Amino acid sequence: MSLVDIPHHRTDPSFETAGPLGVGSTCAALPAAQRGSADVRLPMLHAGSRRLSLRYELQGPASAPVVFVAGGISANRHLAANAADGDAGWLEGLVAPGRTLDPAQLRLLAFDFVGAEGELDAPIDTADQADAIAALLDALGIARLHAFVGYSYGALIGLQLAVRHAARLQRLVAVSGAHRAHPYAAAWRALQRQAVALGQLQCADAQGLALARQFAMLSYRTPEEFAERFDAAPQLVNGRVRVAAEDYLDVAGGRFAARTPVNAWLRLSESIDLHRVDPRQVHVPTTVIAVEGDRLVPLSEAVTLLEGLGGNGRLRVLRSSFGHDAFLKETDRIDNLLAAALRAPLPGESA
Amino acid sequence: MSLVDIPHHRTDPSFETAGPLGVGSTCAALPAAQRGSADVRLPMLHAGSRRLSLRYELQGPASAPVVFVAGGISANRHLAANAADGDAGWLEGLVAPGRTLDPAQLRLLAFDFVGAEGELDAPIDTADQADAIAALLDALGIARLHAFVGYSYGALIGLQLAVRHAARLQRLVAVSGAHRAHPYAAAWRALQRQAVALGQLQCADAQGLALARQFAMLSYRTPEEFAERFDAAPQLVNGRVRVAAEDYLDVAGGRFAARTPVNAWLRLSESIDLHRVDPRQVHVPTTVIAVEGDRLVPLSEAVTLLEGLGGNGRLRVLRSSFGHDAFLKETDRIDNLLAAALRAPLPGESA
Repeated sequence: MSLVDIPHHRTDPSFETAGPLGVGSTCAALPAAQRGSADVRLPMLHAGSRRLSLRYELQGPASAPVVFVAGGISANRHLAANAADGDAGWLEGLVAPGRTLDPAQLRLLAFDFVGAEGELDAPIDTADQADAIAALLDALGIARLHAFVGYSYGALIGLQLAVRHAARLQRLVAVSGAHRAHPYAAAWRALQRQAVALGQLQCADAQGLALARQFAMLSYRTPEEFAERFDAAPQLVNGRVRVAAEDYLDVAGGRFAARTPVNAWLRLSESIDLHRVDPRQVHVPTTVIAVEGDRLVPLSEAVTLLEGLGGNGRLRVLRSSFGHDAFLKETDRIDNLLAAALRAPLPGESA
Repeated sequence: MSLVDIPHHRTDPSFETAGPLGVGSTCAALPAAQRGSADVRLPMLHAGSRRLSLRYELQGPASAPVVFVAGGISANRHLAANAADGDAGWLEGLVAPGRTLDPAQLRLLAFDFVGAEGELDAPIDTADQADAIAALLDALGIARLHAFVGYSYGALIGLQLAVRHAARLQRLVAVSGAHRAHPYAAAWRALQRQAVALGQLQCADAQGLALARQFAMLSYRTPEEFAERFDAAPQLVNGRVRVAAEDYLDVAGGRFAARTPVNAWLRLSESIDLHRVDPRQVHVPTTVIAVEGDRLVPLSEAVTLLEGLGGNGRLRVLRSSFGHDAFLKETDRIDNLLAAALRAPLPGESA
């Protein structure tokens, strides 16, 4: 099945030969990177055939093995500061010299999720994201990934890619994500979407989204972390009770709403809940990394996934008071787990 | 300290001599009960001195030991069907013949929380509730309670009563509540109150409250229960994703909003977060009952409470997939724990 209808591959001219940024910088030279977009026509599961522009970022030596990296629904193509974009990326701590995801050793590819621009107001399946990635690989002339590393929403997409396009990846690392949305986590997200709907009733879209994000943040972290950070008595402000975590949540919610199109968030939140994969149909060597205390993806889900993977799966469990967000916070420990997962011999290889 | 300023004690005339309801009923006769209200002036912690009408319900033999029972913020004075009110009460399964809280063996007292009518739009402390209970006991001529059994918000009030009015109770049973609001649970409630505020922006008070209640419900239950009840694929309804638990949550949220004044809910929700007690100042024999898996009151909080109680405390831990709501659902097991707690010898008594 070809998913690409006359793919047109563009590289942003200004960044095509982007080199180190030297102006006033005492830092080491930033790695070269290539940004661009590929125009494809994608037959979507619930939304018909759509013409999409897939925005990607690619860094690392042209001859190095390619690793695709995908994160949570608010992640994007910019993993870490590079010559094409000097700003910090969402995976700054793990994509760095000396790390397993070292842009000098690997060719790292990431994209903006289908729907991330907020214009596609239709149900988006994780299968659509996987098909889009296959189309993007076609457009870039990449036959096969050395690995797909997915965290949270990215893990769901990785599982779909393994089911639908097994030939495109040698190994999968699925962190804090499983074969389906857990019913409790799905309910939590559905209520967040209702908070947005409540805001939309009065054209207070950003306010609704900020509140939804705050509820989401509680699901990304743990009571243990909050107990350490916010152990202060509540205040009475204008006759109302204000608890210790409220300032932090308010600011974070407002920032998120300012940078996120409401439709993008709604459709990607839905997408997590649409996700369903039969683990028995995954025939790619898969390392599942689960966090004990993850309030969105209970350990029991990772175990069920592992059971379905059979001989293709192995499970590594991390304990962290950061819960679902451990991938973004426990960089040393995650890096060690990634190293083991990416270097593990494939079936038929000797150790 | 007298909290009562010329208490005026009224018994609702129609129920003063309420007897069994016999009309068309094949049930056993309902226990006699007395409903009424006591007018008191209460110096409140954050809201100045207020004139309040404390609405109570009292059932059981006049000579029996008195047990005060208090529940979560949506509970009220009506524990179980009785001759004064044949409707089911909020504690129907535990207040019944043959149970530890048998209205034929004990005199059971309960009240509507201060603020429950929705007219008192001011911060309400759990200390205020405890002071109100002391005033109510004065008005009813009850010197000392055989026990105070509090669940959730009621447990917080029980701890305050033990600190502020130790002479008024012989023993305390504190279920699913501790000496302070946990910072994570406090954040969860604060966001619920913001959902109400978002609704109030557009005079959609009930819609905001219904959403807040749905978020609260997630905190009352557990992922395990949801996984058992709502393990169905999501549906696409009018182009939107609808998850399996959404119908259930919607209906429950709407029902709650229809029967609950917004201000009552806001002020009682705040009250939980205002709650702070030094466990070392509790000098009443106290049984703490905690539920492993309670997402509002982690077991670690119960342990900290127990440490502070020292020789006055003992802890019983229940495992239940109902989480915080176990008190309302695990009736047999809770009944056994209550039996042990109410029959345990007091210091100086022989077993």
